[in-house]
Amino acid sequence: MPDRFFVPTLPDSGERVELAPAEAAHAVRVLRIRPGTNVELLDGVGARARAEVVEASANRRQVRTICRVLERETAPAPALNIRVYLAPPRSKALLRIVRQTVELGVSRLSLVQTRYTVDRPSPAFFVRARAEAVAALKQSGNPRLPKFDPVQTFGRAIAQAAEPGYFGTAPDQTGPAPVRHRARTGPIAVWIGPEGGFAPEEHSQLLGRGLTPVTLGYWTLRVDTAVTALLGWLLGPSI
Amino acid sequence: MPDRFFVPTLPDSGERVELAPAEAAHAVRVLRIRPGTNVELLDGVGARARAEVVEASANRRQVRTICRVLERETAPAPALNIRVYLAPPRSKALLRIVRQTVELGVSRLSLVQTRYTVDRPSPAFFVRARAEAVAALKQSGNPRLPKFDPVQTFGRAIAQAAEPGYFGTAPDQTGPAPVRHRARTGPIAVWIGPEGGFAPEEHSQLLGRGLTPVTLGYWTLRVDTAVTALLGWLLGPSI
Repeated sequence: MPDRFFVPTLPDSGERVELAPAEAAHAVRVLRIRPGTNVELLDGVGARARAEVVEASANRRQVRTICRVLERETAPAPALNIRVYLAPPRSKALLRIVRQTVELGVSRLSLVQTRYTVDRPSPAFFVRARAEAVAALKQSGNPRLPKFDPVQTFGRAIAQAAEPGYFGTAPDQTGPAPVRHRARTGPIAVWIGPEGGFAPEEHSQLLGRGLTPVTLGYWTLRVDTAVTALLGWLLGPSI
Repeated sequence: MPDRFFVPTLPDSGERVELAPAEAAHAVRVLRIRPGTNVELLDGVGARARAEVVEASANRRQVRTICRVLERETAPAPALNIRVYLAPPRSKALLRIVRQTVELGVSRLSLVQTRYTVDRPSPAFFVRARAEAVAALKQSGNPRLPKFDPVQTFGRAIAQAAEPGYFGTAPDQTGPAPVRHRARTGPIAVWIGPEGGFAPEEHSQLLGRGLTPVTLGYWTLRVDTAVTALLGWLLGPSI
């Protein structure tokens, strides 16, 4: 498996592209990559390429890594266009969710302030989230970064929500709920509330929008567990 | 929701039980629980009880919390008796997996040394794992701690494995694999390999045992993502 690097702009086959300083430093100083090495380049918006390192140098002033693109392609978009609406947990758990949504191919992450939401990420969070997402991109091979929306209120989010989909509920909130369908393609939303769950009026609004409650297991899930488990359920093969 | 405490032995209704020192300290010094407060007690092997605090005291020498059991019951065992066979990742990710397996109601966690397994938990890990599992028990309300098996080789584990079930595979390892059935009750196994996947001969042995490969999403998953996503798939409602 060749090492993967992120390049915001990925040129056509035959062209050259220079890695950003941090990526170049990782390539040269950590991975000790030399000219002639084959690597994979990802641009975060769906393009990927096999490439060959043609220059890899380091001195006191700068580190440079230049690659020549051998074969560039656009990866097919995932069949399910998943948007996660999420009541944000604390920053550490939230960054882990960002990483896992990239691994699982989520298209868009929208943070929602619900009635029982406790934590509100700072503007600095989004810088860290992007870095975490880029790291996950390289690790997982997914060539698409999710779109991050700024934090919005639940009321605003639900009023504008157009995607069909599901929301997580605690086992004691509704009992085993019927699930109407499981779309295999197209846009789909997954709504995950905070530790305390959605408030009763939020629950009603989610139902009113045609979203289907889903309960996983028998016990109270933490937010990060709920997101990943619900995405696993959505992505898994059906019977 | 009453605060929950772990007691290794949960007596009958009407009887009294004293919390262990760490639990008592948390109750009295952090939660500031007073006599008369209602709490929930869990014993880790399926019993739970509503209880009332009848003594809560702290001085320099000791902290004591004594509860009287009001109503004791044994929670029904989960319909799916899930055993996770896992190539252990690093200790931090592994502890998070322990926490999430408790939330999702896993019965047994068996660590397996596969060919590409990199990390091997120290004996101290199992002490930390139990503490993490007890914390997850109280947070999630699941009254059953999973059984932890010592690390064993893949060869030994697969030779003795009797449960039907599934194993995680990378998308490029097999392509979308047919899934034969999805048991809703009884014993079931979930096998998750290391970051590098199962080795080809391990893959063959898993297939030879009648286990079904499952691919979730399109990209390479980290071990913690794979465990939680696969359990979510297994526990979610079918269509």
